[in-house]
Amino acid sequence: MTSLQAGPAENRGHPQTDAHGPSHGSAVGGYPTGADFPARLTAVADAVEGFLNERLGDAAGPGEITRPVRLMQGMRHAVLGGGKRLRPFLTIETARMLGGPYAGALAAGSGIELVHCYSLVHDDLPAMDNDDLRRGKPTVHRAFDEATAILVGDALLTFAFEILADPVWQPDARVRAELVLGLARAAGLGGMVGGQLLDLGAEGRFGPANLDVDATLQLQAMKTGALLAVSVDAGAIVGGADPDQRAALLAYGRALGQAFQVADDILDREASSEAMGKRTGKDKEAGKATLVDRLGLDGARAECERLVAVCEAALAPWGEAAATLREAARFTVARKT
Amino acid sequence: MTSLQAGPAENRGHPQTDAHGPSHGSAVGGYPTGADFPARLTAVADAVEGFLNERLGDAAGPGEITRPVRLMQGMRHAVLGGGKRLRPFLTIETARMLGGPYAGALAAGSGIELVHCYSLVHDDLPAMDNDDLRRGKPTVHRAFDEATAILVGDALLTFAFEILADPVWQPDARVRAELVLGLARAAGLGGMVGGQLLDLGAEGRFGPANLDVDATLQLQAMKTGALLAVSVDAGAIVGGADPDQRAALLAYGRALGQAFQVADDILDREASSEAMGKRTGKDKEAGKATLVDRLGLDGARAECERLVAVCEAALAPWGEAAATLREAARFTVARKT
Repeated sequence: MTSLQAGPAENRGHPQTDAHGPSHGSAVGGYPTGADFPARLTAVADAVEGFLNERLGDAAGPGEITRPVRLMQGMRHAVLGGGKRLRPFLTIETARMLGGPYAGALAAGSGIELVHCYSLVHDDLPAMDNDDLRRGKPTVHRAFDEATAILVGDALLTFAFEILADPVWQPDARVRAELVLGLARAAGLGGMVGGQLLDLGAEGRFGPANLDVDATLQLQAMKTGALLAVSVDAGAIVGGADPDQRAALLAYGRALGQAFQVADDILDREASSEAMGKRTGKDKEAGKATLVDRLGLDGARAECERLVAVCEAALAPWGEAAATLREAARFTVARKT
Repeated sequence: MTSLQAGPAENRGHPQTDAHGPSHGSAVGGYPTGADFPARLTAVADAVEGFLNERLGDAAGPGEITRPVRLMQGMRHAVLGGGKRLRPFLTIETARMLGGPYAGALAAGSGIELVHCYSLVHDDLPAMDNDDLRRGKPTVHRAFDEATAILVGDALLTFAFEILADPVWQPDARVRAELVLGLARAAGLGGMVGGQLLDLGAEGRFGPANLDVDATLQLQAMKTGALLAVSVDAGAIVGGADPDQRAALLAYGRALGQAFQVADDILDREASSEAMGKRTGKDKEAGKATLVDRLGLDGARAECERLVAVCEAALAPWGEAAATLREAARFTVARKT
């Protein structure tokens, strides 16, 4: 397997310094470990929490004039202390499997997590889904105010691109540029934001709408699947995957995203509001036919299993080294909250 | 002067292709020309309009699943058909002065213009400044709806980073990564978004507030100055400026941003609502002491002149080649709308 990653092998697993910024020593060290999958998931989530906590302090960083206190409070409220961190887990585990540098993987995955967090802040706004609770806490516009929430989301999205582009985490400019390009495409008008608008349309916001299953699948691929797939792809980029490896990991990431969404559709029919920490049952209120409508609950579960099998097949070239990513696919469909 | 720009000289002025995407042939050619400053400003604005119009079509681009029609309509409403395009003008003219590639300069400047446009969309939202008109047209949330406007802003911001990171406009990954990093810092929590939150605070949104002149200057440097300065800096990066040149251009960009804002403060006291196309006189309603309060109108005008002189002094090493940027500084303070 040829490696696309420029830069000396001794850079792997160490934070980088260069003329552009100081060493951020706290990311030194290797990948987080855990005795089993849940332990590793937790260890990685803790690492992501630590990284983001350090990035979201009150002190102004390079190129910043000052950090307004209220904005930072809102950003921390939106990011820290909750969430499974599935997306950065995918980035980090993919990079780990490929032998990529931990500092770069942690930064890239954490940046993607910021994009996920910003999308939740804006989705919860009164003009959007109008939610008061998220992850069991008041939403940002309820804890602070709506204007602050709009700006918190904007700041998080912007900060994500800063982290991905910062050479202090990733010395290879081609990797940084490719990470930014991939995340922008996944998060933007033809990905997550586009999917959010389609979702509003499906709810009848712009006029009567009844999406058939295929339109719903496309919407879901954009709204949710794109960011999950780019989480894997970012790990592939950081890990120096060659084109064949990258294509296989993209197949894994897309199947995982689809599995995630089918599992969500199933949960939406089953889970209670308290367990999820947010209102559910929305799909039935909206004009959005899901795979559960087409296949029934049992059929949808079978489709999840099929998609997990697609994930596993895509990982076959890596054998045992892909064990964690295989478990991640199973974890995705087994989620109960 | 040593050039930081890697890549063969024959790449200059031509669009690039590589494995990542097709050639976007419509940007072929050299820098726009004009017999005098206003003609050049118009020619560059037309080029930016053309570039953005091409980027904001309905057809899905690389890495995109589909482009929702309503989202694209909203994005075009927010971007096309208005605006002086001062920021991309600064980027393009700085790159031109340094002999940088036109395709890269046009893309970088246009990306920065998208960030400017997104900031206006979100600033106009009901929870923010609640404006019905912008550039003489209904604001996006009035022409469409509030949810669409939120997503339009999000999509524009995201798309800006995609353009800056796309190798089809700029083959040098270090340039792309540096452009993204600079724009993210200028637009983010310690720059534009941070300044917007401080501005809300100054209006008393989070409690009583009365900013002294220095706090107002800091707010303005963040809210407005940072993006203007990075417009120049992006041109410096594209143009391969060495560190001394970059520092001089940064000094120019900062002084220009300050001049822009003092001119704005003066206009705010003078201009009528119809001529500006939006409500004015807001500063007096808010708890925000400006330089006009400290210096009076005549003193503020003198300060503008001083800042223009700073701009001109920073450009001295370039002599006559800097004529357009010198005129841009004077244009900035002479703006009547």
